[in-house]
Amino acid sequence: MKNIKNAVGRDIPESILTNGREVFQGNNYRDGMEYTKPGPKVKAYIKPQESKIVASIKEAVQLCGVKDGMTVSFHHHFREGDYVANMVMKEIADLGIKNITIAASSMGQAHDPIAELIEDGVVTGLQTSGIRGKMGEAVSGGKLKTPCILRTHGGRVRAIEMGEVHIDVAFIGAPTSDECGNARGKGGKSDCGNLSYSSVDARFADKVVVITDCLVPFPNFPPSIEAVNVDYVVVVDAIGDPKKIATRAARMSQDPRDLMMAQECAKIMTATPYFKDGFSFQTGAGGPSLAVNRFLEPLMKERGIKIKWSIGGISSPMVNLLEKGLVENIVDTQCFDIDAIKSIHTNPKHFEISTSQYANPMNKGAFVNKLDFVVLAALEIDTGFNVNVVTGSDGILMGAPGGHPDASAGAKCAIIITPLVRGRIPCVCERVVTVSTPGESIDVLITDYGTAVNPRRQDLIDVLTAAGIKLTTIEALKDKAYSMVGAPDDVQFHDRIVAIMEARDGTILDVVRQVKPYEF
Amino acid sequence: MKNIKNAVGRDIPESILTNGREVFQGNNYRDGMEYTKPGPKVKAYIKPQESKIVASIKEAVQLCGVKDGMTVSFHHHFREGDYVANMVMKEIADLGIKNITIAASSMGQAHDPIAELIEDGVVTGLQTSGIRGKMGEAVSGGKLKTPCILRTHGGRVRAIEMGEVHIDVAFIGAPTSDECGNARGKGGKSDCGNLSYSSVDARFADKVVVITDCLVPFPNFPPSIEAVNVDYVVVVDAIGDPKKIATRAARMSQDPRDLMMAQECAKIMTATPYFKDGFSFQTGAGGPSLAVNRFLEPLMKERGIKIKWSIGGISSPMVNLLEKGLVENIVDTQCFDIDAIKSIHTNPKHFEISTSQYANPMNKGAFVNKLDFVVLAALEIDTGFNVNVVTGSDGILMGAPGGHPDASAGAKCAIIITPLVRGRIPCVCERVVTVSTPGESIDVLITDYGTAVNPRRQDLIDVLTAAGIKLTTIEALKDKAYSMVGAPDDVQFHDRIVAIMEARDGTILDVVRQVKPYEF
Repeated sequence: MKNIKNAVGRDIPESILTNGREVFQGNNYRDGMEYTKPGPKVKAYIKPQESKIVASIKEAVQLCGVKDGMTVSFHHHFREGDYVANMVMKEIADLGIKNITIAASSMGQAHDPIAELIEDGVVTGLQTSGIRGKMGEAVSGGKLKTPCILRTHGGRVRAIEMGEVHIDVAFIGAPTSDECGNARGKGGKSDCGNLSYSSVDARFADKVVVITDCLVPFPNFPPSIEAVNVDYVVVVDAIGDPKKIATRAARMSQDPRDLMMAQECAKIMTATPYFKDGFSFQTGAGGPSLAVNRFLEPLMKERGIKIKWSIGGISSPMVNLLEKGLVENIVDTQCFDIDAIKSIHTNPKHFEISTSQYANPMNKGAFVNKLDFVVLAALEIDTGFNVNVVTGSDGILMGAPGGHPDASAGAKCAIIITPLVRGRIPCVCERVVTVSTPGESIDVLITDYGTAVNPRRQDLIDVLTAAGIKLTTIEALKDKAYSMVGAPDDVQFHDRIVAIMEARDGTILDVVRQVKPYEF
Repeated sequence: MKNIKNAVGRDIPESILTNGREVFQGNNYRDGMEYTKPGPKVKAYIKPQESKIVASIKEAVQLCGVKDGMTVSFHHHFREGDYVANMVMKEIADLGIKNITIAASSMGQAHDPIAELIEDGVVTGLQTSGIRGKMGEAVSGGKLKTPCILRTHGGRVRAIEMGEVHIDVAFIGAPTSDECGNARGKGGKSDCGNLSYSSVDARFADKVVVITDCLVPFPNFPPSIEAVNVDYVVVVDAIGDPKKIATRAARMSQDPRDLMMAQECAKIMTATPYFKDGFSFQTGAGGPSLAVNRFLEPLMKERGIKIKWSIGGISSPMVNLLEKGLVENIVDTQCFDIDAIKSIHTNPKHFEISTSQYANPMNKGAFVNKLDFVVLAALEIDTGFNVNVVTGSDGILMGAPGGHPDASAGAKCAIIITPLVRGRIPCVCERVVTVSTPGESIDVLITDYGTAVNPRRQDLIDVLTAAGIKLTTIEALKDKAYSMVGAPDDVQFHDRIVAIMEARDGTILDVVRQVKPYEF
């Protein structure tokens, strides 16, 4: 089988380069590319109807004409508390429908029951921005009929907005909806704050079903999902487990190693030219990333600097800065905790945006394009600054590219914080198992054993050095890691490709192969 | 030339039934019809760019590649204060570009200078939901090369969302915008409240240019027009004349005839089964229509009834009811006066919606479909209850179907208020000059000489009669009008068709022919 080496040095088999697919050729390879957006097939409702409510999910599945080979979509705003995907897929399976492709914004342990539907041939395709639990094991074990397609959050909406993914039916769990399908992420007992991931699904799917456990009077305004795009509304007892949808804010990490790295990160940020009044900021949801806010706050106050806008999945520390007036606007695609949900309900400067506005690389300019800083985590990072956040050290799918590659590509200064080793695993290595964010997107790596700047960013090396910040090289960090825990053995894979990791622009960044059972 | 008689009895020449066009066959003829939405051609901006600002409208026209034969669009939120369409069309004309089709949400006297461009062959096509002033005279005089297409507000977005109109470049005047094109109807010196008419243009046009006279910091949120759809931003000195954009609230009509009809209307509304707590309501902008609010208020209080939502172009009387708690929500496509603009800025229950949400007959259910009452005016209404709001008694185009046919079709009770005669012109007649709203949409006609109910609505005749309301017939009203001012002479037309009046679903309701100079 012939391979083509892509811009991150990965060998991509020609056999998967069908339908115009290309290998990854650098972040801006497709800049300026022209394409025509697709449109959904719409059935007109001219005759006034009072309500779109149908009796059950089963009835909605039947009315939408779900049949073998179709693609259905789900969002992951309910995270590990989601009931919707399982309920819908059970009805589809019970109706004897096969060969369904699931196009989800993410899949987690909540969806373990769907792994069985992969074995049964009900689900034969999967496209997602995250995969964990039994779904990950099933895919890594080679049980899915077609390769799973992993996309970034921006890449997922790109694929929809470019017609690469055609959603036949979008099933949208909604904390509140009116009888016509004006749906919101707010209110009810399964409150998740917003429905950003479904915004594009609702506009591009042929059929749209809103599933809610809290019917409210018409009009449910302002809607995240507009009734003009909704065909049916189903009212069920529960769309999720509130305790797992909206968790309490994570306590600020007290791990001295995390805090040390976070402090270093704040120090580095303030030494760059981007740290000026009105800067923009995104932090990942990890402990060290969130702790950066704590160390940044006094430095901002000291210099009289405020953040113009923060973006991303939002959690308590950012809400805190908004409330203190240190952040002027929050633009939000996902609420990570109760504080974020409360804030998006009540604070007029906390806005819901669609995932297209957030990160689609091929619209006319997403928010990430204007980011100054993003601080993110990594499972692994290699000496080419390539990051892996999708496969574990055992090679099994267990993570989510999510918005990581989007924010990194867009930000003027993308910072990775990771301990040098986790247990016996080196986090800085020669070659990551899977590239999920290309090295050209990453500018700075902060570890508990030193900080390295991507050699592409000599400008940053210069300003940081001038500011007295001690830098090392990523090779030195890798050597240190290997000296501590040894060079890792290569994970053993079969040849079969079980997943394709798309770059955000749709080119192929890497492939994931079927894992071999570990042999002692 | 062969004609086909349509459902309102108009002879439609077969020669214009091209490209799948059909004659009007009743309001719900296309209910359930399936179609595929089109998509715009998009140029991707992957590479982060700080700003989309270009130096001038001329540069934007050139960068968008405007050329002979293209279609450009405009909104009419600045009403008679609009400068944008004239500025853009002047640049297009100066560049020597010809055969442009203007797809506007409405054109008024503000656009008189564009009438000259019709004579010059710069503008050879016109599609609009309203036409007044010299533009109307030019079209009625046969000067436009192709028939002008008149659409309702809902019909305009329908045509865009079904691909019948392809907008090459949308030029969107915006009271405020940031450097990336997040644009709002709010703020600045040309504040118009909202940008509902442009929402669909921005999503379906290949190129989108935002023209503003008030640049604000990024992000200008929440945006009416999302930056993800915008290619270029132009900052100019003035996009309109604020005095003509946002007029003071019209004083409540003191004309005893208007007040009498408004009082009768309120009385009739309260006698129908739709007058119950939580009803929905739209009023037109005319004096008698607006005065209905005044008479309705005490009747609502008396019965402890509130309006769940009001919709439409919004003006002071409705804002007043919102502030008094007698209206719970306002969903707004156009702010008619300063009070409405102030309210949409500050009242969290006063919402901007797109024209698709308002009235597109062929999406999955627009707001008008759920209307209980609409109260509207008419230039003429005939014994088939067909209404004319587009041509004057001289046959010249001077009006706007606007949302009239949309709200009438959707509402459970559509009421027309008009004096029986205006000057020497009978407003109730045998046959209107042009049918702009089909008679099947109209339920009740209130005049200063009596009220008639459409015979299709025997249910309403029964309840109103039972409530002791005295009704007459529309024939009797016509006879009365003719007895007062005489039967009108037929307007004299040439054969040439100068405008096509589309029903909201895209079928042909009527045609307008070139006027003959009046001969004594």
